[in-house]
Amino acid sequence: SAMSEDTLEQYRQRFRSELDRVVDFWLKYSLDKQHGGYFTCIGKDGKVYDELKYVWLQGRQVWMYCRLYRTMERFRRPEILEAAKAGGAFLQRFARVPSSGNPGKCAFCLTRDGRAVKVQRTIFSECFYIMAMDELARVTGDQDMQSDAEKMMDQLVHWVRVDPSGLGRPQMPGDPPVNSMAVPMMLLCLVNQLSEGRPATAQKYSEVGDWSVQQILQHVQRDGTAILENVSPEGKELPGCQGRLQNPGHALEAGWFLLQYAQERSDNQLQRTAVDKFMEVPFLSGWDKEHGGLFYFLDVDGHCPTQLEWNMKLWWPHCEALIAYLMAYTHSKEPALLGRFSQVYDYTFSHFSDLEHGEWFGYLSQEGSVVLDFKGGPFKGFFHVPRCLYMCERLLDSLLEKRQD
Amino acid sequence: SAMSEDTLEQYRQRFRSELDRVVDFWLKYSLDKQHGGYFTCIGKDGKVYDELKYVWLQGRQVWMYCRLYRTMERFRRPEILEAAKAGGAFLQRFARVPSSGNPGKCAFCLTRDGRAVKVQRTIFSECFYIMAMDELARVTGDQDMQSDAEKMMDQLVHWVRVDPSGLGRPQMPGDPPVNSMAVPMMLLCLVNQLSEGRPATAQKYSEVGDWSVQQILQHVQRDGTAILENVSPEGKELPGCQGRLQNPGHALEAGWFLLQYAQERSDNQLQRTAVDKFMEVPFLSGWDKEHGGLFYFLDVDGHCPTQLEWNMKLWWPHCEALIAYLMAYTHSKEPALLGRFSQVYDYTFSHFSDLEHGEWFGYLSQEGSVVLDFKGGPFKGFFHVPRCLYMCERLLDSLLEKRQD
Repeated sequence: SAMSEDTLEQYRQRFRSELDRVVDFWLKYSLDKQHGGYFTCIGKDGKVYDELKYVWLQGRQVWMYCRLYRTMERFRRPEILEAAKAGGAFLQRFARVPSSGNPGKCAFCLTRDGRAVKVQRTIFSECFYIMAMDELARVTGDQDMQSDAEKMMDQLVHWVRVDPSGLGRPQMPGDPPVNSMAVPMMLLCLVNQLSEGRPATAQKYSEVGDWSVQQILQHVQRDGTAILENVSPEGKELPGCQGRLQNPGHALEAGWFLLQYAQERSDNQLQRTAVDKFMEVPFLSGWDKEHGGLFYFLDVDGHCPTQLEWNMKLWWPHCEALIAYLMAYTHSKEPALLGRFSQVYDYTFSHFSDLEHGEWFGYLSQEGSVVLDFKGGPFKGFFHVPRCLYMCERLLDSLLEKRQD
Repeated sequence: SAMSEDTLEQYRQRFRSELDRVVDFWLKYSLDKQHGGYFTCIGKDGKVYDELKYVWLQGRQVWMYCRLYRTMERFRRPEILEAAKAGGAFLQRFARVPSSGNPGKCAFCLTRDGRAVKVQRTIFSECFYIMAMDELARVTGDQDMQSDAEKMMDQLVHWVRVDPSGLGRPQMPGDPPVNSMAVPMMLLCLVNQLSEGRPATAQKYSEVGDWSVQQILQHVQRDGTAILENVSPEGKELPGCQGRLQNPGHALEAGWFLLQYAQERSDNQLQRTAVDKFMEVPFLSGWDKEHGGLFYFLDVDGHCPTQLEWNMKLWWPHCEALIAYLMAYTHSKEPALLGRFSQVYDYTFSHFSDLEHGEWFGYLSQEGSVVLDFKGGPFKGFFHVPRCLYMCERLLDSLLEKRQD
């Protein structure tokens, strides 16, 4: 049975009003007027409980403000642009760690006034730096900033594909290279980011994009019945817990990255794989039939994962699932996909959204009660929630527009 | 009202039979007859689910076997000595990481056949290496092994008190040195270990012991109403989540370390502090009045901790609490301390012990259900459970002996 237009319209209204509330929450509580950048450790009622500034979250917040400003009429407001610029300036001034001996290396965490606290030997701080700078450059027209982003991208591709030694992680004889899903996902995301509306740049990175897609597809294992988080660089299963790890939210996020990429290239086979493998498989393995919601981690052979939080319900896998199923439905109009979307929607809005103080809780028990009640923390900022709300609102706009045609 | 001798005798019987079961479990399932060392990732029914060998756990298991062999008649069995020697040989052959550029640095994790997988930039692998080698040397009489342990200890004291650069952790401008409770606790534990029955060695390390005690005492904060996990090297409170963190199980473990140290020196004031601060304060803040059991982490100002597992009930804080309260009661005979012991005992034995397959579960939800059902994992091995059972059995022996006098 087809879902009524009324229902879709109700969804749209809810996404729209939630997005407004979330944007208000972060504008109100997170801006550090004294030192620049954003506070991201924000309690349930908006109170800052720690002043550390996590670089992933700084970069993501800049990106999100700019994307909203650039693409949605009602967010084209000076205060949003100012907030984005303040975050960008903070990052440009403080994110890099000169003492690391590598000009591109960014810190993971900074003090309120921008001194490096911790540097990770991975590429992710740099990824979110690139996203921030590229999107901010699109809004401001700052060419230097855009070439700063592209230079960092080239450094990153070098670390991933040519020589990781600049990251500072010693090569251990018992720890051979791994194809960890996060890495090609981030590269694919950055290729999309840098390429939009720039044919020459798209051309430059098209091979990196295709390579990233191939690397992501290597995670489809066991005759297509499992998406595994870590595989060998040759696409073989790895031994032990690392090799058996499943992260359903991550697979779903990869699913909509792939679907978007496939749609732009009219690649029907990749579209099919994105939906059948990266959206259907993680739901079948990852949805908690007893209490609802998506598990955080699972072991493909049914062993207990060693991550203490494996059975918790986190906000971001649900955000990614909403985007994935709505995007897939918008494209194919298969009712089953809208059914999945509705199921995730019902769980998500009844469990994560805080009607009292605004924004969403991030961390629930398996049974669905709030275990960590802050709105922002070391890994939760102004990103997954607003990106989900933004993308779903736009997808619903396009769905409802087409129906009216 | 005094607890009856019958009750104490029932406790002793339970500790004794649990210790036998736990020793049997690990002898049966954890020995790697092919490559040496121990499997430590062991499922609820004894099945090995990952072959990685965590150095902390290898070292602790060697220590525990030797301590049982050396001090308890019924464990002076050839198979226990052989198991200990096999673990010691594996560690001596593989634990050190020559490529780290530092002769003493040990890996955190090895492959089944001993290749380094991961090296932490902390001192803990080395601590458990020292414990293993020293206790094994006591059993075998191997002088070289004992001097190997002492050499590593001197290296460790140098890293902690003189120059940490050999650990390989770059100094970050926003991350000044911290007095983290684990470090002086481990040093104090090692001073005790190396000094037992060796007056010259005791003399050599007595200043390190006193310094460690002073460093631990710096964690008593807020006019004695809180034990904080991290303070500044000058003993001041640190800002943010790091500074407000409480780890009740760790405080209780420090409590019995201090009490033991104080008793040996007949230091009454330190005995009082150990009990009143390190045993009473974490119980008041850390015991879950709703569901029972000790929380893993708490924020002293009542903010939500950022650790996803903060509200879980872990086995080891309960092990440490049992030792702490029984040791304190044995010493002072204050009935309130035996009351605390009983309360922790009832929760612990009704929730953690697995009557079906033996050994204990390690990780419960706040409500007390088993969330991770393995018996061994990356941080749970043959250590906290048998050490607790062993120490409590001996404390009960001494209590019941005295009553009979």
